[in-house]
Amino acid sequence: MTDQPCIAVDAMGGDEGLAVMLAGVAHARRQHEGLRFLLVGDEAAIQAGLAQHPNLSQHSEIVHAPEIVGSAEKPSQAIRRAKTTSMGVAIDLVKKGRAAAAVSSGNTGALMAMAKLALRMLPGIDRPALAAPLPTLGDNDVVMLDLGANTECDARNLVQFAVMGAAYARIIFELERPRVALLNIGSEDQKGTDEIRDAAAVLRGQTHLPLAFTGFVEGNQLARGHHDVVVCDGFAGNIALKTAEGTARFVGDLLKRAFTSSTRSKIGFLISRPATKLLRDHLDPNNHNGAVFVGLNGIVVKSHGSANELGVATAIGNAAKLVRADLTRRIAEDLNEFEAAA
Amino acid sequence: MTDQPCIAVDAMGGDEGLAVMLAGVAHARRQHEGLRFLLVGDEAAIQAGLAQHPNLSQHSEIVHAPEIVGSAEKPSQAIRRAKTTSMGVAIDLVKKGRAAAAVSSGNTGALMAMAKLALRMLPGIDRPALAAPLPTLGDNDVVMLDLGANTECDARNLVQFAVMGAAYARIIFELERPRVALLNIGSEDQKGTDEIRDAAAVLRGQTHLPLAFTGFVEGNQLARGHHDVVVCDGFAGNIALKTAEGTARFVGDLLKRAFTSSTRSKIGFLISRPATKLLRDHLDPNNHNGAVFVGLNGIVVKSHGSANELGVATAIGNAAKLVRADLTRRIAEDLNEFEAAA
Repeated sequence: MTDQPCIAVDAMGGDEGLAVMLAGVAHARRQHEGLRFLLVGDEAAIQAGLAQHPNLSQHSEIVHAPEIVGSAEKPSQAIRRAKTTSMGVAIDLVKKGRAAAAVSSGNTGALMAMAKLALRMLPGIDRPALAAPLPTLGDNDVVMLDLGANTECDARNLVQFAVMGAAYARIIFELERPRVALLNIGSEDQKGTDEIRDAAAVLRGQTHLPLAFTGFVEGNQLARGHHDVVVCDGFAGNIALKTAEGTARFVGDLLKRAFTSSTRSKIGFLISRPATKLLRDHLDPNNHNGAVFVGLNGIVVKSHGSANELGVATAIGNAAKLVRADLTRRIAEDLNEFEAAA
Repeated sequence: MTDQPCIAVDAMGGDEGLAVMLAGVAHARRQHEGLRFLLVGDEAAIQAGLAQHPNLSQHSEIVHAPEIVGSAEKPSQAIRRAKTTSMGVAIDLVKKGRAAAAVSSGNTGALMAMAKLALRMLPGIDRPALAAPLPTLGDNDVVMLDLGANTECDARNLVQFAVMGAAYARIIFELERPRVALLNIGSEDQKGTDEIRDAAAVLRGQTHLPLAFTGFVEGNQLARGHHDVVVCDGFAGNIALKTAEGTARFVGDLLKRAFTSSTRSKIGFLISRPATKLLRDHLDPNNHNGAVFVGLNGIVVKSHGSANELGVATAIGNAAKLVRADLTRRIAEDLNEFEAAA
């Protein structure tokens, strides 16, 4: 299975609808030979949509689920409908071993609640965290976690996130000892909350893990490429992630305004277009889509609700990479090692 | 005094040194006719530095202070030296009524601790907050607070910040009813911490204040221009502010790479230079420098540690504007009104 991973896709989740999800799956199939899919959702609608993607039909199977989780639905409410919703059924396919990973663009809170209930935590883990690689100026991206699964975290949670984030970074960046930092509001030892300072003390004390703890990192240093993993609670992580997204878009909008402000600047823009297109691709969130819930007994990838075809394909590609690299087992091994030495 | 404000400047604070501080003061003096200054710090050094700025000498007076607060010094340690440091003496000049405001580029924690101790809080205020306007796509900037004065805040603090931030926005943006939002990780009612949800409940219930509460705002919406004031605790505010700074710089660096990647793109860049220069000015943190501690009995403005001449001048200009607009009295009036109705 690890060589020919089968991915369960919640075909109904996300703001963009079924057609974009299917186009994204077909896109992923073209990029990654050998992938197989279980497309979960309304059978008739998926069947109709697949007419556009004959090549995908050969490598996928439809699994019917009559209901959809609403984007504003409370997780506590959604989990009662786990067995009948496309999201719940996709996760259940992972639990049953029919799929190696589930991918959904739906409601994050519901996805986490369903995944936690169905797949359970790895031994010793209290909470899963949402982790994703973000672009930097350095040689590789930076894995950031938690991006919003847990509003509040204690020191123990943060240390577990550090261990899991390092395992993730080793896989996707092929690093021996990822540099791991805690997100804080200053670099001095006394800065931040008790939880952060306590987590720093534990991480400073560990020597047996394949990670290098580099202390505190501030928001303005996230993209400098000086760290491979940045750890924080889900509130701070979500604020940082969304502020970075919003600021990149803001600068892009200002740039557009600047370039269209005069004929002269329009000409300049046209000439330098190939270069600015590269930049746009580098910053396009669809090229960085697909956050994974680490700490679960199984791989569940969250695709952005507004991801386009490319974004969905990127998220599926990430899921396949983590399946092939055996993320769950490798995180479990690191956690065992950490617990044994503690 | 309100017509010809006198500003006490901590001439020794900041990473850039005395020469940049003095150049910034001279720059501000050229921009704002009528300002007078008390330059606080080492008398001989300031005297020597003023030789470069003959026009400034006429409108300023040196107040000697033999010591400097270190940038990594603990606030608890710094306040013991309040009477002998340039930072402490500058604040003391405000307390004594000799200056209408103090401006420092030094250690933020020490500045807040000294200002709190010397000037005291406005009646009913538990903690001051650091507030500053940040650039948006809209008609005006957005005032954000707290930017790092208080790592953790309760609902009462957040509500006070909203009232004070609105008073500040009315003054600097000349608005009747600023739109005030709470920074959160989602727009739905159940999102975020208890503190944020409780503060939202109080703000939703108020009708007598000159502000319009608009609910929750996420990090990706900060720069859209849909809000005039965004309220958060100092941890989240600092993460958001610095992540925005870092991302803007990151995009700028990528843009530079893109524009220098080929001869063609270099030519395009040269042609569109006037337009991109406008953009650079718009994003330059030195054009947005000068955060004010709201909630104090007096005006203390924090200039960025690495502010250049222009940045220092911007911070001083902000201080002068707040003095002329009588910020302290107006915030006190709003707070009275709020407390009377509560």
